[in-house]
Amino acid sequence: MNSPLLLMAPLYPATQQELETRYRCHRLWEAADPAQLLARIGADCRVAVTNGGRGIEAATMERLPALQLVANFGVGVDALDLNWCRAHGVAVTNTPDVLTDDVADLALALLLAAVRRIPAGDRFVREGRWLKGGMGLTPSLQGRRVGIVGLGRIGRAIAQRCLAFNTAIGYCGPRRKSDVDWHYADSVVALAQWADVLIAACPGGPGTYRLISREALQTLGPDGVFVNIARGSVVDQSALVELLLSGALGAAGLDVFDDEPQVPAELFALDKVVLQPHQGSATHHSRAAMGQLVLDNVAAWAAGRPLLTPV
Amino acid sequence: MNSPLLLMAPLYPATQQELETRYRCHRLWEAADPAQLLARIGADCRVAVTNGGRGIEAATMERLPALQLVANFGVGVDALDLNWCRAHGVAVTNTPDVLTDDVADLALALLLAAVRRIPAGDRFVREGRWLKGGMGLTPSLQGRRVGIVGLGRIGRAIAQRCLAFNTAIGYCGPRRKSDVDWHYADSVVALAQWADVLIAACPGGPGTYRLISREALQTLGPDGVFVNIARGSVVDQSALVELLLSGALGAAGLDVFDDEPQVPAELFALDKVVLQPHQGSATHHSRAAMGQLVLDNVAAWAAGRPLLTPV
Repeated sequence: MNSPLLLMAPLYPATQQELETRYRCHRLWEAADPAQLLARIGADCRVAVTNGGRGIEAATMERLPALQLVANFGVGVDALDLNWCRAHGVAVTNTPDVLTDDVADLALALLLAAVRRIPAGDRFVREGRWLKGGMGLTPSLQGRRVGIVGLGRIGRAIAQRCLAFNTAIGYCGPRRKSDVDWHYADSVVALAQWADVLIAACPGGPGTYRLISREALQTLGPDGVFVNIARGSVVDQSALVELLLSGALGAAGLDVFDDEPQVPAELFALDKVVLQPHQGSATHHSRAAMGQLVLDNVAAWAAGRPLLTPV
Repeated sequence: MNSPLLLMAPLYPATQQELETRYRCHRLWEAADPAQLLARIGADCRVAVTNGGRGIEAATMERLPALQLVANFGVGVDALDLNWCRAHGVAVTNTPDVLTDDVADLALALLLAAVRRIPAGDRFVREGRWLKGGMGLTPSLQGRRVGIVGLGRIGRAIAQRCLAFNTAIGYCGPRRKSDVDWHYADSVVALAQWADVLIAACPGGPGTYRLISREALQTLGPDGVFVNIARGSVVDQSALVELLLSGALGAAGLDVFDDEPQVPAELFALDKVVLQPHQGSATHHSRAAMGQLVLDNVAAWAAGRPLLTPV
């Protein structure tokens, strides 16, 4: 492929380096004048590579009339204008499967850390408070029911892990799955009525915007736990913060937020909340595999072979 | 039972209250003159209740010539002079099984938190550092081998959980178990050669003192992870601290220490270490069940029935 390739955002360094070795890449985020860069390469640029956080919007793609492929580093494509791509015959690939286990591991890490107050206990020791007396008791995961919002690849991997902790599993989603016999609820509120813990594992985007409502969180109640490794957009974040502050919701483990990296500062005082800076797939293990899949999709496209993981 | 009952240390409040309602209890830790209390009740006191941290030493029991039962609130009896009890016909009970799941949950919480840097990520967000850039990548649990030191009740519950994270399982202990086909190593060093992660789940006491040696930790190496939910005594703590500081050991999740609540302050600067103030069974769920078992053992003894959980 001799035509220019547009990089929308920095990628895992080894992946970016390999792309820049193989193709004539242009870094949009470093361009002094992005519009000028787009004007210069637009007529020939057939491939754009982005990541889940940056995506690519219609306004940019409209300046790339030769665009044929958007390769996304990440599984979530909610920051990418899929409708525009469909309407203009632009293929889209993402990186499913290879990050599933790490994201599910982080969901369990957040669940256990929120229930057993791991960062709070760590602060308790580091600040020398243990020398003056014990930390007191915490809730337990035992005997709890876990409701998973979205039983896709990641939701199933979370369920597999939760089962080993003896929790009952329930889920909600667009349709009942025929291959599992877990409790199915036809709405998030119905799932929250059944569950002690809700874990958001659904895609982001307009279809799931505020899917986990104030009512669902209130239904979960003062002993309830909410975990989010999906997207900030899937939950009513103001209600979440308010219910945690008032004690109407018991605990939370949050990897994602509205308007990242902004995080509501009211949460910083709470021991029952565990916060992570969007680390779901942020391991060398996942990122290297995601990068390989981006490279393989671009190479397949350049060679005229079928894409490996079209969206 | 009309004879006095000696309480060595405060217990879970509901349990202590029930004991004090049922029996004539004396709180040793509140006695202005403990020796005088022992002299006053010694001739009649047939039952002592203690916990795993406090135990009971020969010097105290020698002043209780009528002692027939020591009921321990906790599964670990390493702070209790078992040899003295055996030699003097004093029965001992502990509280196994009812705390197994919570302790195993904490082991996984520590493992995941250490590998994925959960408290470090939580600090990163709370201190506003995310606003200036990402936290960077962490190691992953995927593809790792977990070696469990001591495959008793708690070790098995840990193995059950680890399997759901796709890790291979190995173990060492006094003997190979015939009912599992996991990798067996005949020493801790041999287990560390095979494993990426070592989890200590063996009893404390002289039989396991420094069982996890400097050599074993060194063998685990710069990507290795050590988790301890057993007792501080089972590991060479100075070597552990030194290897973590130098980077010769990758990460650690520690719930127990030599000389608790003292924790080596050199660890407080390390993001790759997760520290807890001995929270293994510190949930309402476990403590209530442990307390019931203490009450049931004392009641069985008082009624002349067999003890439920003799050591």
